[in-house]
Amino acid sequence: MTTRPPAEIGMKLEDVDTPALLIELDAFERNLARLPQAIAGKGVALRPHAKTHKCPMIALQQIARGAVGVCCQKVSEAEAMVQGGVADVLVSNEIVGRTKLQRLAALARLARIAVCVDNAGQVAALDAAARDFGATLSVLIEIDVGAARCGVAAGEPALRLATAIAKSANLRFGGLQAYHGSAQHIRKFEERQAAIRGAAEKAGATKALIERNGISCPTVTGAGTGSFAFEAASGVYTELQCGSYVFMDADYARNLDSNGTPRPTFENSLFVWATVMSRPTEDRAVVDAGLKALSTDSGNPTVPGFDGVEYVRAADEHGKLAISRPTNALRVGDKIRLIPGHCDPTVNLYDWYVGIRRGRVEALWPITARGAVV
Amino acid sequence: MTTRPPAEIGMKLEDVDTPALLIELDAFERNLARLPQAIAGKGVALRPHAKTHKCPMIALQQIARGAVGVCCQKVSEAEAMVQGGVADVLVSNEIVGRTKLQRLAALARLARIAVCVDNAGQVAALDAAARDFGATLSVLIEIDVGAARCGVAAGEPALRLATAIAKSANLRFGGLQAYHGSAQHIRKFEERQAAIRGAAEKAGATKALIERNGISCPTVTGAGTGSFAFEAASGVYTELQCGSYVFMDADYARNLDSNGTPRPTFENSLFVWATVMSRPTEDRAVVDAGLKALSTDSGNPTVPGFDGVEYVRAADEHGKLAISRPTNALRVGDKIRLIPGHCDPTVNLYDWYVGIRRGRVEALWPITARGAVV
Repeated sequence: MTTRPPAEIGMKLEDVDTPALLIELDAFERNLARLPQAIAGKGVALRPHAKTHKCPMIALQQIARGAVGVCCQKVSEAEAMVQGGVADVLVSNEIVGRTKLQRLAALARLARIAVCVDNAGQVAALDAAARDFGATLSVLIEIDVGAARCGVAAGEPALRLATAIAKSANLRFGGLQAYHGSAQHIRKFEERQAAIRGAAEKAGATKALIERNGISCPTVTGAGTGSFAFEAASGVYTELQCGSYVFMDADYARNLDSNGTPRPTFENSLFVWATVMSRPTEDRAVVDAGLKALSTDSGNPTVPGFDGVEYVRAADEHGKLAISRPTNALRVGDKIRLIPGHCDPTVNLYDWYVGIRRGRVEALWPITARGAVV
Repeated sequence: MTTRPPAEIGMKLEDVDTPALLIELDAFERNLARLPQAIAGKGVALRPHAKTHKCPMIALQQIARGAVGVCCQKVSEAEAMVQGGVADVLVSNEIVGRTKLQRLAALARLARIAVCVDNAGQVAALDAAARDFGATLSVLIEIDVGAARCGVAAGEPALRLATAIAKSANLRFGGLQAYHGSAQHIRKFEERQAAIRGAAEKAGATKALIERNGISCPTVTGAGTGSFAFEAASGVYTELQCGSYVFMDADYARNLDSNGTPRPTFENSLFVWATVMSRPTEDRAVVDAGLKALSTDSGNPTVPGFDGVEYVRAADEHGKLAISRPTNALRVGDKIRLIPGHCDPTVNLYDWYVGIRRGRVEALWPITARGAVV
């Protein structure tokens, strides 16, 4: 159904039907440039997370601006990136099951592939899959640096895994995955900084322990859009995995800087384009973008440019707007922009980006890893 | 990417890779049969909502069991249904914008198409689109029966719209859309019953007013899986729009019956199939199904068959399970079923259903209206 592009190059934005997923290209390109600038000279590489955009055409633009490759979370996502021309992928996640490991090993014949483990059984399974396909996989150990999700404990448990990897004929020990996901959304600057300080200490001590045992630990990877400045300054991390910086979202925009102000480094470049489909009362409007057009897991979208208009409830196909100052500014048929609460799962609902510059469609990029969850 | 089916017919369930969207066919077929049985002899027709399943192969099974057609929420959803062999579609929603109205009118050359309005301007726009394509559209008036979303007020405002529709050369007045969405999820039986009693009173009085003014009002349509027994018994509703009954979900299962017991009429037939990808501590497991594999807007999924295991947090690609009774029953690589919190937006994340009977893949049905939001 949705393999047909949702717009045409050259079309005016007003003529793009809704819901559609828009990228404001000027803001997007400023974001693309701003992160490499912010970390220049810090001695850390950028490996942006493709789970945010799921689009090789964006990955290639990141690489053109200096990124060393991308991160993915799923084998199918990595396949889509390699199919789209990306030559270096870190699957920053544990991959389990024979079929997936075979796909990963086969992919490693075509591109540089790294993957994470937090379990000794997986080291043996990865080695077998790599041997089976005559491939070499780089394997990183995920350590739990505070997120309490996947990962072995820092220190000795990581050393034991590193030793097992280093002994595996078809694996190469890549280093440490030390991502603190929940820290990205800690609002207060000092608390966010403290969380990453703790993560960097765990990662640094583990790296030192592994290297004292004669195993080189070239990479310590982690960080996200909410915290990257801390990892970049840590002296421990060697690669940053920021993803959302290209788009931003309403949730990230609520993080506070050192002055206690929400002053994001990046601009909102991603919008859901929606139509007012009903205007039943003075204090209510309904748009055609609900739960199937945006993800509300991190809160409702915001409505830029309309004071006194709040998106208060998403149903499957409806978004209810509360209008606190009676206004006739929103009429049936009007199209408006929404800033999604959470960019990643919102992107995963669409097959195409509609790239806009100065009110005109300039780009139609297929989101080839949309739905790539396996 | 995901046009390739995620399994093969005849494969064992254990071999189906994850995440995948499973239908337990025996339970599904019992649900399919149970709703027509429950309303037999009540004088109401069944027009199931295809927004739940988005799959013509399921719509045709509903029609084979007596449904008069289906409901859709979007033009693209209606197109997918007609393309899949469905001949009668009610778009139970306001459709706005010239392009969409043209698509609707063009579709009405091939199938019986009805649509809703709650605004006089839309009556004229629909009439123009129908004339343009030499089609006739059936138009229903949505009245607000308590959901405070779309819809005109019951009574005179609806009569004015009915008069405008009846005067339009290319439109046929179809009746009233009187759906009380929020009532579906009122937990207490008596409160749910009272909400629908209020809706039926508004719809009945409006129908009487319109008919006193010489306009026939053949259809009053509404109801969902949470409340259909009340609409069926109302003497006002002529069509029921239940959708979720084929699948059920964790949220609907929390509705209480007249004894204050959660005793659903229907069975859970829809599951997300997931793999344990990490088991870092005794009290924690992580599965590979997060926000991109299930929707959490109505709460987290439940984990049937595992006492003391709770799905406590969904991240983009991870689901964290809290294990309150230390157990080794869940090991890395084990595959488990999850019951989604909300079936409709979960279905919209997948391109295929994997139909299972007695532990073996028997059906692979494309979800052709997945992502059909325009």
